[in-house]
Amino acid sequence: MIEVGPNSYGKSAIRLVKVDRDVTPHRIRDLTIAIALRGDFAASYEQGDNAGVIATDTMKNTAYALAGEHLTASIEAFGFALGRHFLAEPQVQEVEVSIEQHPWVPIGDAPDAFTRDGSVTRTARVTVRRDGAEVRAGLAGLIVMKTTRSAFSGFPRDRLTTLKETEDRILATKVTAWWTYAPDGPADHDAAWEDVRSTLLEAFADHDSASVQASIWIVGKAILERHPELADVSMSLPNLHHWTVDLSPFGIENDRQVYVATAEPYGLIEATIRRADVDAGS
Amino acid sequence: MIEVGPNSYGKSAIRLVKVDRDVTPHRIRDLTIAIALRGDFAASYEQGDNAGVIATDTMKNTAYALAGEHLTASIEAFGFALGRHFLAEPQVQEVEVSIEQHPWVPIGDAPDAFTRDGSVTRTARVTVRRDGAEVRAGLAGLIVMKTTRSAFSGFPRDRLTTLKETEDRILATKVTAWWTYAPDGPADHDAAWEDVRSTLLEAFADHDSASVQASIWIVGKAILERHPELADVSMSLPNLHHWTVDLSPFGIENDRQVYVATAEPYGLIEATIRRADVDAGS
Amino acid sequence: MIEVGPNSYGKSAIRLVKVDRDVTPHRIRDLTIAIALRGDFAASYEQGDNAGVIATDTMKNTAYALAGEHLTASIEAFGFALGRHFLAEPQVQEVEVSIEQHPWVPIGDAPDAFTRDGSVTRTARVTVRRDGAEVRAGLAGLIVMKTTRSAFSGFPRDRLTTLKETEDRILATKVTAWWTYAPDGPADHDAAWEDVRSTLLEAFADHDSASVQASIWIVGKAILERHPELADVSMSLPNLHHWTVDLSPFGIENDRQVYVATAEPYGLIEATIRRADVDAGS
Amino acid sequence: MIEVGPNSYGKSAIRLVKVDRDVTPHRIRDLTIAIALRGDFAASYEQGDNAGVIATDTMKNTAYALAGEHLTASIEAFGFALGRHFLAEPQVQEVEVSIEQHPWVPIGDAPDAFTRDGSVTRTARVTVRRDGAEVRAGLAGLIVMKTTRSAFSGFPRDRLTTLKETEDRILATKVTAWWTYAPDGPADHDAAWEDVRSTLLEAFADHDSASVQASIWIVGKAILERHPELADVSMSLPNLHHWTVDLSPFGIENDRQVYVATAEPYGLIEATIRRADVDAGS
Repeated sequence: MIEVGPNSYGKSAIRLVKVDRDVTPHRIRDLTIAIALRGDFAASYEQGDNAGVIATDTMKNTAYALAGEHLTASIEAFGFALGRHFLAEPQVQEVEVSIEQHPWVPIGDAPDAFTRDGSVTRTARVTVRRDGAEVRAGLAGLIVMKTTRSAFSGFPRDRLTTLKETEDRILATKVTAWWTYAPDGPADHDAAWEDVRSTLLEAFADHDSASVQASIWIVGKAILERHPELADVSMSLPNLHHWTVDLSPFGIENDRQVYVATAEPYGLIEATIRRADVDAGS
Repeated sequence: MIEVGPNSYGKSAIRLVKVDRDVTPHRIRDLTIAIALRGDFAASYEQGDNAGVIATDTMKNTAYALAGEHLTASIEAFGFALGRHFLAEPQVQEVEVSIEQHPWVPIGDAPDAFTRDGSVTRTARVTVRRDGAEVRAGLAGLIVMKTTRSAFSGFPRDRLTTLKETEDRILATKVTAWWTYAPDGPADHDAAWEDVRSTLLEAFADHDSASVQASIWIVGKAILERHPELADVSMSLPNLHHWTVDLSPFGIENDRQVYVATAEPYGLIEATIRRADVDAGS
Repeated sequence: MIEVGPNSYGKSAIRLVKVDRDVTPHRIRDLTIAIALRGDFAASYEQGDNAGVIATDTMKNTAYALAGEHLTASIEAFGFALGRHFLAEPQVQEVEVSIEQHPWVPIGDAPDAFTRDGSVTRTARVTVRRDGAEVRAGLAGLIVMKTTRSAFSGFPRDRLTTLKETEDRILATKVTAWWTYAPDGPADHDAAWEDVRSTLLEAFADHDSASVQASIWIVGKAILERHPELADVSMSLPNLHHWTVDLSPFGIENDRQVYVATAEPYGLIEATIRRADVDAGS
Repeated sequence: MIEVGPNSYGKSAIRLVKVDRDVTPHRIRDLTIAIALRGDFAASYEQGDNAGVIATDTMKNTAYALAGEHLTASIEAFGFALGRHFLAEPQVQEVEVSIEQHPWVPIGDAPDAFTRDGSVTRTARVTVRRDGAEVRAGLAGLIVMKTTRSAFSGFPRDRLTTLKETEDRILATKVTAWWTYAPDGPADHDAAWEDVRSTLLEAFADHDSASVQASIWIVGKAILERHPELADVSMSLPNLHHWTVDLSPFGIENDRQVYVATAEPYGLIEATIRRADVDAGS
């Protein structure tokens, strides 16, 4: 006996830009949207029966059609609107809407000219079911560096260990972060997102790092302490290694000044920091 | 109270090439390896205590050091060897080793010259715990197309539906597939992988497609029927849309001959096909 | 006084797929096309006068509209057809059509199912002017490796030189090659391209390499000797370094067996090999 | 008779980061460097004679070795230092040093924590010969958008033209710009670069665009007028099309509010704007 197990389908990489020209400066919402449905779709697999299969092309149309009326507040609100729309179909049991927002900033005082800020992408994932919903917000692509106050020492050494202990290395990473809002959520998702990003950057700048793991803890703890509307925060941090170049063969001293930045291989540290009571309750 | 929840750390993008020159033609194993550990690491987060933190640099060294002795059979076997090595440390509870193998083929009859076959990547993920292990094998990047016998019709229409029904479209996708071997596994992982790939391609070529969903079912069912050593198979299939170009404004008929290939947006269909008894037993 | 100097404009990344279903197996032409025009366009810059500016959207339409009738032989022939079309406009003095062809191969004996061969991309660039035309053909993305018979020694050493001499290294590269056909060109561009590719691979496999430079010479010379219809051949070869891993700290001998494949930095060697009389005549 | 024609070789993708910690905030120079040599290298091709072939590995070492002493002012100055170093070898006739600088900005008032500014890359290319040198500076990856005051109309229409004329479209592009400094160059390359970028952004924001071509002219002319130290400026501008979505089938008006952003195909407009007397003199 063979059967269909877990499955989902939808449309990804829907590129939608909305411009509001009745504010100064104009407001640009530049989004990449993915919509995925889960529900009673076994017949579409096992019998090739498309009677319940909302076309992914229709999902794309829906994103554009709803943008005028429903993309007026946060991307989280737009995700909800899209989720509720598809949940109206009886065969749909869960809708997951993932949105990336690409920021633009005005050029000087111009009302109608912008540069894209390539420093960070705002992300949201709204999952809507008949019995509830979950909102996760996050950011991606935020590259940060500490030029001092980062160490890595005290780790175990065996015959395969060659890494030297260091009390002063460069710590560089590309932050992907996700956080879950408490059920009632923040009053203003845009403000909440800006606040969490600010806390993340401040905590990253302020702390002394004993390891990437310790940095995740310190930054994550600071976020949860300052933002009671968050239930947890997860980070996925590649360790973008910067190795001190050995210039001694050339008679040149290199006292933590010249580094080679490497792309491969990279450390990867991932963890969720959460409120203990949240866990106890689950 | 704030605590560390689920976490893992390791080294990714370890690029390792091993050449055996005592066979003709030479044998190239070209791998990209990721190692991730899970276990008693809370202190490394909460106290910045690195006493149990095997350096990711050491993981990299280990991959190269073990390659001579242990990378002699399949990548699955090498994944096991790496997994068992790290599991020897008491703080480690689970090791996940993910390996991509990039195939090379000899040039003609040459014993020592090769071209890289960019058509597919073989993948494996070995997860080792004290109480057991799991092996998943797969492939990625396999781009395939059906030029006839692919339809999409009978789907629901609402006011936002503009897609026309079609009994003859191009179906193109980039296959990512994963399968789980039964606990005792195949006798020969290399042969098993080749066989599954062959079945996948044959079933893809043979069937009439009512939708991407139906294709996943038919191909996945064929794989499970012909390969009893598999417990399940999962596929993630982007629908790489090829749209018939409307040339009628130019007085040119285009009877399914000229298409525009598009990259964005794309449909995405993901499902697991499994043996029903496997599910009942879990 | 400020003026417009050299300029061109056009449409890039036109993705066009043509399927001929009246042959067995079906024939797929999967192309990425770029069209660029040069000519009397100064007014479009200096006065914002678009009277002569053929819309790039029209260029895209033209590629699709001409594909039915003119994309029946080689991509070189299609490039000519597109070039001549735009040259009919008096303000256009030169049309450059660049085409990439992505190969597909049938699955077994199937007439209508294919896999994309990711091992190489065929390229062509046709430049058409009122007083003549030039055809360059080429290939890109062909990754090759020699596992023996590749050396690099005898190079100068100064105080900044640390690289060891080697008589047996791995040579790996990703070939981008371009060649110019003699004015009357080959009778059959498809056959000519296949032949040049075969010669390139054979010469790469056969020769002993003293350096990437020497390999370019040997392979390029073989191509020109065997293919009199070519005037020159150029290659751009990144040296995809494979470094022998030093395992001696771990008590393991590594006699050219285990390598780390690197992406950054890479050597880059570029040269044109040509017939001396061709040069003398120009 | 077959011979080597134009050729060059060198090292690309040298990733070098230098941190100066004796200023507040610390100063990060994050560079990607490519070095290419041209000269008397025919013997390395035709005879496999490496006697004159400075190893590309040595070029990499040199970049790191010289960074301490010579990477203290602009990347242009560092390019000169690298160029002169290699030109000391008699077989070298020309050295081309290409440098990308990735900007970092301090987090708040922190002296030692930074975010990478992904909005633009600064570029320089210094070419040094025995009889002179050329410095080109530039920028890449600067994505900009005008939400009003951009038109495209008055272009010729033929039977293959379907694009509608518009007096109000979105203009979006990813700027790659290059400029040549007059022989004596600017006193301060860092300040000059900042000034040119500012002018480019201001002119982009201020002008009314009749086409991408007209925008290149207006922006380029403004740059040359305000910066007499520049001889010319070139731009390569992809037209990142934003198409108004037709929502009328859904009974929704879309008055230039909701757009689909597209990646393929794209217009590509490239031109050099220069001082006429510079041209007359050449």
